[in-house]
Amino acid sequence: MPCSLIIDTDPGHDDAFAILLALASSNVTVLGLTAVAGNIPARMAAENARRIVELAGRAEVEVRTGADLPLFRPARHAHDIHGKTGIDGYDWADPEVPPCGGYGPEWIISTIRQHPPGTITLLALGPLTNIAQAFRRAPDIVARLAGMVMMGGGFFEGGNVTPSAEFNIVVDPEAASIVFRSGVRLTVLPIDCSNRALMPGGWADCCAALGTRTGDACAGMIRFFERHGNAKYGTRTRPLHDVLAMAWILWPELFSGRACHVGIETSSPLTLGMTVVDWWHVLGKAPNCLWLRDCDHETIYARILECLSRLP
Amino acid sequence: MPCSLIIDTDPGHDDAFAILLALASSNVTVLGLTAVAGNIPARMAAENARRIVELAGRAEVEVRTGADLPLFRPARHAHDIHGKTGIDGYDWADPEVPPCGGYGPEWIISTIRQHPPGTITLLALGPLTNIAQAFRRAPDIVARLAGMVMMGGGFFEGGNVTPSAEFNIVVDPEAASIVFRSGVRLTVLPIDCSNRALMPGGWADCCAALGTRTGDACAGMIRFFERHGNAKYGTRTRPLHDVLAMAWILWPELFSGRACHVGIETSSPLTLGMTVVDWWHVLGKAPNCLWLRDCDHETIYARILECLSRLP
Amino acid sequence: MPCSLIIDTDPGHDDAFAILLALASSNVTVLGLTAVAGNIPARMAAENARRIVELAGRAEVEVRTGADLPLFRPARHAHDIHGKTGIDGYDWADPEVPPCGGYGPEWIISTIRQHPPGTITLLALGPLTNIAQAFRRAPDIVARLAGMVMMGGGFFEGGNVTPSAEFNIVVDPEAASIVFRSGVRLTVLPIDCSNRALMPGGWADCCAALGTRTGDACAGMIRFFERHGNAKYGTRTRPLHDVLAMAWILWPELFSGRACHVGIETSSPLTLGMTVVDWWHVLGKAPNCLWLRDCDHETIYARILECLSRLP
Amino acid sequence: MPCSLIIDTDPGHDDAFAILLALASSNVTVLGLTAVAGNIPARMAAENARRIVELAGRAEVEVRTGADLPLFRPARHAHDIHGKTGIDGYDWADPEVPPCGGYGPEWIISTIRQHPPGTITLLALGPLTNIAQAFRRAPDIVARLAGMVMMGGGFFEGGNVTPSAEFNIVVDPEAASIVFRSGVRLTVLPIDCSNRALMPGGWADCCAALGTRTGDACAGMIRFFERHGNAKYGTRTRPLHDVLAMAWILWPELFSGRACHVGIETSSPLTLGMTVVDWWHVLGKAPNCLWLRDCDHETIYARILECLSRLP
Repeated sequence: MPCSLIIDTDPGHDDAFAILLALASSNVTVLGLTAVAGNIPARMAAENARRIVELAGRAEVEVRTGADLPLFRPARHAHDIHGKTGIDGYDWADPEVPPCGGYGPEWIISTIRQHPPGTITLLALGPLTNIAQAFRRAPDIVARLAGMVMMGGGFFEGGNVTPSAEFNIVVDPEAASIVFRSGVRLTVLPIDCSNRALMPGGWADCCAALGTRTGDACAGMIRFFERHGNAKYGTRTRPLHDVLAMAWILWPELFSGRACHVGIETSSPLTLGMTVVDWWHVLGKAPNCLWLRDCDHETIYARILECLSRLP
Repeated sequence: MPCSLIIDTDPGHDDAFAILLALASSNVTVLGLTAVAGNIPARMAAENARRIVELAGRAEVEVRTGADLPLFRPARHAHDIHGKTGIDGYDWADPEVPPCGGYGPEWIISTIRQHPPGTITLLALGPLTNIAQAFRRAPDIVARLAGMVMMGGGFFEGGNVTPSAEFNIVVDPEAASIVFRSGVRLTVLPIDCSNRALMPGGWADCCAALGTRTGDACAGMIRFFERHGNAKYGTRTRPLHDVLAMAWILWPELFSGRACHVGIETSSPLTLGMTVVDWWHVLGKAPNCLWLRDCDHETIYARILECLSRLP
Repeated sequence: MPCSLIIDTDPGHDDAFAILLALASSNVTVLGLTAVAGNIPARMAAENARRIVELAGRAEVEVRTGADLPLFRPARHAHDIHGKTGIDGYDWADPEVPPCGGYGPEWIISTIRQHPPGTITLLALGPLTNIAQAFRRAPDIVARLAGMVMMGGGFFEGGNVTPSAEFNIVVDPEAASIVFRSGVRLTVLPIDCSNRALMPGGWADCCAALGTRTGDACAGMIRFFERHGNAKYGTRTRPLHDVLAMAWILWPELFSGRACHVGIETSSPLTLGMTVVDWWHVLGKAPNCLWLRDCDHETIYARILECLSRLP
Repeated sequence: MPCSLIIDTDPGHDDAFAILLALASSNVTVLGLTAVAGNIPARMAAENARRIVELAGRAEVEVRTGADLPLFRPARHAHDIHGKTGIDGYDWADPEVPPCGGYGPEWIISTIRQHPPGTITLLALGPLTNIAQAFRRAPDIVARLAGMVMMGGGFFEGGNVTPSAEFNIVVDPEAASIVFRSGVRLTVLPIDCSNRALMPGGWADCCAALGTRTGDACAGMIRFFERHGNAKYGTRTRPLHDVLAMAWILWPELFSGRACHVGIETSSPLTLGMTVVDWWHVLGKAPNCLWLRDCDHETIYARILECLSRLP
């Protein structure tokens, strides 16, 4: 089914794969990218987004910078995971085209308003600051979206920053709360799902074997991303969280989950940024998202590789 | 001393007086107004701001619409106090000039950046949503301001919405917290000060006696604003809170206060939106504002009347 | 009107005056004292209580030790105010009679159950740990009390420990919350009232002039208690907070206040231990106490002196 | 290894099995039981505890009543799970011996003080109100315990009352927080472990086949406890949570877990009563418990049956 995408992102290695997968998918039209502070500051995120679209030979795809600070709290980045640039591991060329002017959330609003209702899907790969600002500035756009898919949160495995909070949520919990309460048709790819979806062993080599610059970049990024292995979980490979959210858009039949109500903790220091999933429906609240918990990751990674092979 | 002002406002009867006082002051240049949701929705606030500048014969002063929702929480208005329009009590003409395009906080940012550092004062008369958005989007503008003066908060008399919270703060406590933590040179006119600064008896008649349309509008607004007297406090007249913040800009020698640290409650349901004033300096934190507590309100209202008499 | 009292206390200079006033009052039967951690640890509080009843020549009055830790939080004392012993300033003899065995809150419960309903008044002069434990262990005693009078809290002047919290409440906010929600007929003497009720100048001399050991002890305690003057508030004398709560039992006609709902902040770090007074009845909740705000302190201190003169 | 036990309990079907297992174990001396409000009010809990020790032919084991209300919050029971009596499913005789006088937490304190240090283990099967009261009243007993074992909490499966909170903790989160912060040598059997430790199919029949009154009572209780199957988790049998905590005392080699820091949420309404487990040691705090996560439940239930067969 053809699909028009807006991608909000803070690349990030796994963001890069998600963006490349979107650009490689014939049924997907990428309307543009907005950059948000998360793994790295917003300006770097915009530059990285440019590098990625140009790597894919798609310099015409527009990138805009968005929020550099969360709605309410201090900034927080993840250079320890993603390196100095955010996409370390490949010798990236400087972007040939600069980001477009204008503020990301404003562009999200106007783009959604200019397209027919029900035609645009929002793919959110970082903290939800840009999206929350757009939804608050223009509540009418929520109902105009075909849906929203996001990578973030985690419940059954705890968090990855604090014992109970995942990075994309804890960086801007107020933004997450706004999105989850907005009424948008939301699908969530949490670490509950992604932590089980490890890259296949030797996947960097498979990427390199594509013999393309995209393949080289992917191989380099994977090798950097997995440079420490995955000591915490005792596995050798790691999951590419964000790419799985894009994969759900393409192949939802490879995922399973449950419609349920998810609340966002915004006040307690102990549990700040937690996504509290009412998996057993004990609260009697209407579901506000589809919470994905499992996927056929072997098939998914195989299909991703196939898609990546189409890029230059 | 000459002063360039940006006024952020949600008119509101007392906002109207503050704006008129600014426009009537020869030393003050009003660079423009931004409207924010508070007493009324943002769009109405912008229209009212237009009505007020045009009443004063100053149609060239630009007005822009800003945030219609607080950063994080639901909207909350005060039609019970200010009537259906927000400035009930006078037969206002429709504005001849529409608000300018563009988003209020963006205009605040670009205006401050375009003027020399230390020349602009920000006067905030409503919830602090616009200001907080501007400070987060462009932290550099904070140090470029000559200062910021705001009406809001209250400590020694409790609040006016809940037992401990005042309207402008409780409507958007996260925005208030951002402003108080921003490092801006801040003066606060709280209800601690304004609740003691009642309009003189018969002040509506004094306004009417000016024999001008401004005088008529002021008289009508006062009569509406005081239609129920001031039963809560057992007085017959009421205070025009916002105008006192503008008065401080003009005549700071008529006020007294203390530099102290003020924290904003953003988490507890019981005390949400409270301005916790460390008046006795027991916390050992550096002051983040000048908290005004008393003023010579008789002199102030007399001078205001004198200023208003200069308007058409 | 004759009155039977249980006094829960953490002496403390002002506790000492309250206890002496109770013992000196012909209409009052003191059934016993329970000591609670507050100004000092519970064991020291019990010893001081013994010293005080023996000073008054009333060695038969029983004292029991109660809780040495708040319900939930760490202990917190006030040796900076009350000196090493808690009642510094007089050369106190060691108690001749030790505290009785048994746990204070248990004795409170059994005593209230053994007396006819409506005959006992509880006077609480410290943190409310003992009282809260008794009310939770035996909810039936609440309705058997004639009433409860306590010193603690503050709203219109802020707090005396943090900007918004008073000592007796912030030491054990959960206990205070239990008491205020218990349904007990409660009168509160907060610092709103006591901070205005300064001892008369030269009151230590007046006590000394009684020519009794009680007078000497009182004079010594006052001189110690006022050794630093009252720099914070810029006055030379200080208020004897606790004695005013006992004074209300004797002479309620000398006080004014308002029945209102008071909530206790137990969660926010910023406002922890605050007594949020709905003075203007904006919440629509039933009053849970009489909140005293003013008193004729000149008459009160004169009467106290007269009472003290009856003691040896 | 011989072991002296104090059992704090709110029977409850699974409490009953834990108590019976303790009484049936030759190496275990049960010093006494204290009843706490949880599944049922404290008085009923004490009566049920009497019924259980008398069923086992051990009428000499003393039972005392403890707290009927949590430290701070309202009472909350689980009659929906455990039936009207708390141990529905068997035609229990009335107890022949009444509970002893005295307050449970006081008896816990004096018993621990009267025994040599390091000889007593505390087994907590309900909300932690009694234990927390004892630890606060007499902090010295913490170091005198050989250890404490408790059933409660849950992290990797969420909670069983709210999405994130388990019953024993959420009923009295302040008490749980006190225990986890006390420094006691603590082992926790959470639902993370127990929910995977389902009774074997036909276990009620196995109990009945013992041909004893204990076997009959166990069979009846199991049939009642499993009357609805286990719809939530889609299994036919259920876990006997509490008995697993006792099983750990007897056969720790059948369990696996990890020493880690666990925080208790006491302020946020969304996550109140959550046990936040720092499984991955990301907080850098010293472990405060051993958190059990897996067990060989087939062996355990087989051994339990063998033990139960020794009872009359």
